[in-house]
Amino acid sequence: MSLCALRLTEAAAGIREGRFSSVELVGDCLKRIDEVDHDIHAWAFLDRDHAMRQAEAADDHRKHGKAVGPLHGVPLGIKDIFDTGDMPTEFGSDLWAGRTPRRDAAAVARLRAAGAVILGKTVTTEYAYYNPGKTRNPHNTAHTPGGSSSGSAAAVAALMAPGAIGSQTNGSVIRPAAFCGVVGFKPTHGLIPRSGALELSRTLDHVGVFGRSVEDVALLAEVLVGFDQEDPDTRPVACPPFTAVAASEPPLPPRFAFVHSPVWDQAEPVTRDAFAELIEILGDASSEVELGPRFAKAVDMHGIIMEVDMAHNLRRDYERGGDRLSTRLRQAIERGRTHLAVDYCNALSGIAPLNQALDHIFDEYDAILTPAAPGAAPGIETTGNPIFCTLWTYLGVPAISLPLMSSETGLPLGVQLVGRRGNDARLLRTAHWLVTASGTRCKVPSAGAKLAPGAAKRKMR
Amino acid sequence: MSLCALRLTEAAAGIREGRFSSVELVGDCLKRIDEVDHDIHAWAFLDRDHAMRQAEAADDHRKHGKAVGPLHGVPLGIKDIFDTGDMPTEFGSDLWAGRTPRRDAAAVARLRAAGAVILGKTVTTEYAYYNPGKTRNPHNTAHTPGGSSSGSAAAVAALMAPGAIGSQTNGSVIRPAAFCGVVGFKPTHGLIPRSGALELSRTLDHVGVFGRSVEDVALLAEVLVGFDQEDPDTRPVACPPFTAVAASEPPLPPRFAFVHSPVWDQAEPVTRDAFAELIEILGDASSEVELGPRFAKAVDMHGIIMEVDMAHNLRRDYERGGDRLSTRLRQAIERGRTHLAVDYCNALSGIAPLNQALDHIFDEYDAILTPAAPGAAPGIETTGNPIFCTLWTYLGVPAISLPLMSSETGLPLGVQLVGRRGNDARLLRTAHWLVTASGTRCKVPSAGAKLAPGAAKRKMR
Repeated sequence: MSLCALRLTEAAAGIREGRFSSVELVGDCLKRIDEVDHDIHAWAFLDRDHAMRQAEAADDHRKHGKAVGPLHGVPLGIKDIFDTGDMPTEFGSDLWAGRTPRRDAAAVARLRAAGAVILGKTVTTEYAYYNPGKTRNPHNTAHTPGGSSSGSAAAVAALMAPGAIGSQTNGSVIRPAAFCGVVGFKPTHGLIPRSGALELSRTLDHVGVFGRSVEDVALLAEVLVGFDQEDPDTRPVACPPFTAVAASEPPLPPRFAFVHSPVWDQAEPVTRDAFAELIEILGDASSEVELGPRFAKAVDMHGIIMEVDMAHNLRRDYERGGDRLSTRLRQAIERGRTHLAVDYCNALSGIAPLNQALDHIFDEYDAILTPAAPGAAPGIETTGNPIFCTLWTYLGVPAISLPLMSSETGLPLGVQLVGRRGNDARLLRTAHWLVTASGTRCKVPSAGAKLAPGAAKRKMR
Repeated sequence: MSLCALRLTEAAAGIREGRFSSVELVGDCLKRIDEVDHDIHAWAFLDRDHAMRQAEAADDHRKHGKAVGPLHGVPLGIKDIFDTGDMPTEFGSDLWAGRTPRRDAAAVARLRAAGAVILGKTVTTEYAYYNPGKTRNPHNTAHTPGGSSSGSAAAVAALMAPGAIGSQTNGSVIRPAAFCGVVGFKPTHGLIPRSGALELSRTLDHVGVFGRSVEDVALLAEVLVGFDQEDPDTRPVACPPFTAVAASEPPLPPRFAFVHSPVWDQAEPVTRDAFAELIEILGDASSEVELGPRFAKAVDMHGIIMEVDMAHNLRRDYERGGDRLSTRLRQAIERGRTHLAVDYCNALSGIAPLNQALDHIFDEYDAILTPAAPGAAPGIETTGNPIFCTLWTYLGVPAISLPLMSSETGLPLGVQLVGRRGNDARLLRTAHWLVTASGTRCKVPSAGAKLAPGAAKRKMR
């Protein structure tokens, strides 16, 4: 098997134990990129020599017997909204073409400190909003990979990188992870610092991670979590041992609260059928739980915050280059400029009481089980509907998408698990249990260059 | 001398060293209240027996050899916007008459934990906004004590309590301290937790303290500063040693930046003359510093935040009892309901860059020197103009008012010193130096019942 098909945790262990070098691993990933990326277009920036030089430095470092970090020599994709001191960062917009930041975003700096090779920058939708970039779904290039972290999800799915980071302000990690059939994890709001990343909304922006297993995303998140002076929502608390807890056995079999959520009417038949099947398989481990009417307003609340914050944070871009922004983005900014401040404050103050209401569910259940998206990836004219992520992003709770099912045409369907705010480690443990119990692991497009859509019937894989 | 005339630090030391008891001190304060409060009306709630029982308990505690806190047995006034589990908390509004909270505000709990006797609740203006309460200025009852922490400032000035706490969202600590001739100190935003206090604006609300010396306010603030889970703007950092630093000698003679501020045109002749005199006395220790045009917008920015946050936080009061609110308050709320969210966000985001601009001043100067108010206390139909506090409240910087001067009619004039955000201890040290250097201490109304206005000419006292 080619090294590029290894999961991130396997790749890190292999380098650490000297079974192969970072140069071999990065070389294999670059070879894979040469083979498949002309169809997928996951990368916004890639400098092969620069990547290899980082790999060589990592190998030298190890050969000299120096301490290695948990991601030593492992190549990662970085969504092109995170500043990198050695590569351009363009936010998926012409307006910022050729922008070269002077220093790394906090998240990138943490990955480098853990030994990672920054392979390249992955395609983001324009300003991490809804206007699609050039990336295609590795399972079927006639479909969207989802957005806004399009390139990150596609790169991991197509074996071009064992892991990647992205961001979510509405559904930008969970949705592309679901559409591309990888694991996407968005930790609790404020756990991972956002300094040096494009800011759409302080309240809603989350850093998220992609991998091919729960262990992979646990490791990435564990490296990224931490206090940062420049991100006022981070807190100086001890970093939770995500990998250790994720790998551990739950003391009791987990219980799942199957939550239709207020947007269930938008779930497509494929999703309804798949969840009916999953719920049946889970049997007593799952119960249907109603969220109650107070949660119905969350989507509107989220929208007000997102539009207002975008109108504020992107005001200079709008004023200077409004005609070079997409209509979708311009209209969102223009809506943001009309909202009243009291409605904005009201939307902000709705978050805490809804989280308190959710606590009652988490007193009884280990995780909420709910779709990651209305259905499988749609065509390339959109990045798909984030509606099944909106509530959880608004609440700042941890969420993970697991590629446990697929549509009749072989497109992945994501199962979303949601945890209590701050209880990320338990969510990862529960997710790990579910993956193990259902006997699946991520299905990736075949390791060859050809990326034909699977023909498997929709089923638990 | 009656014990009620002791400064807070002297009172605390006296009890600690057994020179007098808490019962004697509290008894003297209650006697003073009986003598003078019928003219001043500083108290919204006072239960003499309950105060004496707290004093007895404090004395018992000490007699049994138990550890005593830094405020052991010292009676304090609490502005009636801080919840008290044993006394009503009515926010200066009929709408909340008889409201009895179930637990103490974080600030009150910290004072109790330090051993303080909670003497009673002091008068606040209606909802800590501009509509005057019943309190009169102890120096001349035809004048306002200032607001909104009217009762706290007046009680300390009139020797009814050696210290008190208040709050400032615009000029509600500095202004009444200046008008009443006591020391008022508003530490950096986020240092003292506000949980359990009336919320007007998360961004602008500060807890502040009143005493009769810099040492007094340093001690009170030191007890109050700390992290609180329920106040998201507090941070788990080590408590600065305010009292130790305040009492220490500066390594070099402090330098003062005399800042006219963008509202100097509103300074009355009495203030202009007094500051001319002060600047002359300070000689080389002070230089005139211009803030620059960017600071001119701060007053408008502050107004937007305050009105929007009040419209949001008081929305239920407005909807249920709007006709029982004062016209002033109702109009502020109504203005708040019309502001756009992007203007609100813009006002919030203006704070950090202005603080950065101020840093250049604090690189060269120990403190900014500026008036606390346009002039001496006006009549009782208003609480006076907070305009000389607005910028500093908006920026969240520490500020202290020192009663160093007086008007020709004997009304106090405050000198405001402002420090760098987070550098409160240094500000206190500089303030202490200035008070010592100018050879003054707070002038209080004579310890007798009579509270005639002084006849001293305006001068450095």
